[in-house]
Amino acid sequence: MTTDQKHSPKQTILFLTQGDPASIAPEITIKAWKNLRQSGPAFIWIGDPALLTPHIPVHILCNIDEVLEGEASFLSLFPLFRQALPVLPLSLAVPARPGCPDPKNAARIAQSIRIATELTLELTLKGHSCAMVTNPISKDIMHIAGFQHPGHTTYLAELCQVPGQEVMMLVNPFLRVVPLTGHVSLRTALTQLTPELISSKARIVARGLVRDFGLPYTPRLAIAGLNPHAGENGLMGQEEQTILTPAITLLRSEGFTVSDPLPADTLFTENARSLYDVALCMYHDQALIPLKTLDMAHGVNVTLGLPIIRTSPDHGTAFSIAGQGKADSRSLESAIRLTAQMSLQRQKAS
Amino acid sequence: MTTDQKHSPKQTILFLTQGDPASIAPEITIKAWKNLRQSGPAFIWIGDPALLTPHIPVHILCNIDEVLEGEASFLSLFPLFRQALPVLPLSLAVPARPGCPDPKNAARIAQSIRIATELTLELTLKGHSCAMVTNPISKDIMHIAGFQHPGHTTYLAELCQVPGQEVMMLVNPFLRVVPLTGHVSLRTALTQLTPELISSKARIVARGLVRDFGLPYTPRLAIAGLNPHAGENGLMGQEEQTILTPAITLLRSEGFTVSDPLPADTLFTENARSLYDVALCMYHDQALIPLKTLDMAHGVNVTLGLPIIRTSPDHGTAFSIAGQGKADSRSLESAIRLTAQMSLQRQKAS
Repeated sequence: MTTDQKHSPKQTILFLTQGDPASIAPEITIKAWKNLRQSGPAFIWIGDPALLTPHIPVHILCNIDEVLEGEASFLSLFPLFRQALPVLPLSLAVPARPGCPDPKNAARIAQSIRIATELTLELTLKGHSCAMVTNPISKDIMHIAGFQHPGHTTYLAELCQVPGQEVMMLVNPFLRVVPLTGHVSLRTALTQLTPELISSKARIVARGLVRDFGLPYTPRLAIAGLNPHAGENGLMGQEEQTILTPAITLLRSEGFTVSDPLPADTLFTENARSLYDVALCMYHDQALIPLKTLDMAHGVNVTLGLPIIRTSPDHGTAFSIAGQGKADSRSLESAIRLTAQMSLQRQKAS
Repeated sequence: MTTDQKHSPKQTILFLTQGDPASIAPEITIKAWKNLRQSGPAFIWIGDPALLTPHIPVHILCNIDEVLEGEASFLSLFPLFRQALPVLPLSLAVPARPGCPDPKNAARIAQSIRIATELTLELTLKGHSCAMVTNPISKDIMHIAGFQHPGHTTYLAELCQVPGQEVMMLVNPFLRVVPLTGHVSLRTALTQLTPELISSKARIVARGLVRDFGLPYTPRLAIAGLNPHAGENGLMGQEEQTILTPAITLLRSEGFTVSDPLPADTLFTENARSLYDVALCMYHDQALIPLKTLDMAHGVNVTLGLPIIRTSPDHGTAFSIAGQGKADSRSLESAIRLTAQMSLQRQKAS
């Protein structure tokens, strides 16, 4: 997997959302700023400064116009990043207590996401190199407060006016995987798999790998078989023939480079990984088991199919360890780095 | 994972079956003898000497009685192992052509398995340290020839008069996993999972880890959740509550050390692996993906639940590369080494 390490972090405008203030999000934000302040990429955080100020210096951006003036004004902000974390301030409804999430703050959590999305979309459409990273939120808490989305992704797709186009890809230094079905029971996932689902997501993934990851060739998509040994010619399941192969045939006719259904158990060895750019997996754990087994710390969740670039760390709120100094910021830092690379890549490609 | 590296290879009697003569079995047998002849463990091969004699020296055992005289006579064989591979000879029905399996040889393939099993059982019951390793066979070819078993394991269970007691465990230097359902479609696997299946296999696995792997404490069994995030309290599937938890409750009441259903995606990280001795997985790929992703070369298939110790390499016949010198013998060598360790461990425990 190639990455462009030579970017100048000053060229990209990155927004980081607040996430749930009772989660590990404030702590990993603080750690990420400390670890990235010298090297970049720089980022702007959108949240309640009171969550950070006991620990690190912040630079309050007076208003959104200060951001919207664009790249020129942004460039002047970046020398500041070494001294203080730039913050677009919001106020929580009630003070955060680590480990004790409060639905009263849900509206402000959503507001941080909405502002980041709107700014990223506006600046992207203006031709700036811009992207956003989201800190973890709790679906349960957001639901209690009436937030209608199962998570960030559908909310972002709605804000960007491309509902249903979002595709989750997970990336770490060893592997890129796309779980074609999501947070549903395995039984339900089996019923959701269709040739249309596979082909529509595959197209979005292939285009995303060219536009945002700079692949200089048609991306090589590996298709993980659903059944053991990819069904072994129908002996252990029919879905390879009835669902996967029709999608593969269609995609090939459109010019995409797509494998046959491959046995999933041997798909993630070092040799096998060298033969594809992304593995399309049929269910959550088929994608997440190899990803996390190979590298638990540096996983990044990338949303493809949006007009904007958006990533997040691949872990959740971790309320049980919030406020204890134990949280690992490497996934967030990987997300910030990858996002900057993707953003520069997209600008280069456009 | 602790292993006893200090065993004397001379103390264990190991039989290796011929496997399919048109597969990579002869080649990996030859390589394994070359790689193990100095260090051990020594083994006795049961097959047609013509498969080996063009490549390595063999020592033909005149008759089975020569073996059955037991350990004393065996010990005199082992100095020979450095010079030649001891062989209990069978004759193929037709000469083997690499890559072109012939059902006419199926009866002799099965005979090698039967002789190895009967000898291993007899010597084990007599109190010797004895075990068997099987080379790969082709289910298709055996089926055509009228062999009634889907593979080695049920045949061995029948020969040992414990049908239905066999449990497959896969072992490599990083991990032990048990796929609770086998070579069936994922859809079928979902219907096969019952509390009884889980608890009956768990008991066999726990006992095997004490008897043959020398765990000096109650083995810690990790239970992989079936659904993403182990169902997240029923939000993504009910099987954790309706099938897994009843089995766990029963097993705990019997004194076994069993985890709650754990999210499968984080179950195979280095930290997670340090907390259990074996992971019980709900379907084939849930077990095989992490095992092969972590280490493709050294996987060993162990059959627990038999009165004898039996292992095999964790790969198949690989007809497509047979006779080309490309086959990797590391899995077979790992199987031979592990089998010797298990055999000595069982004798120590008895």
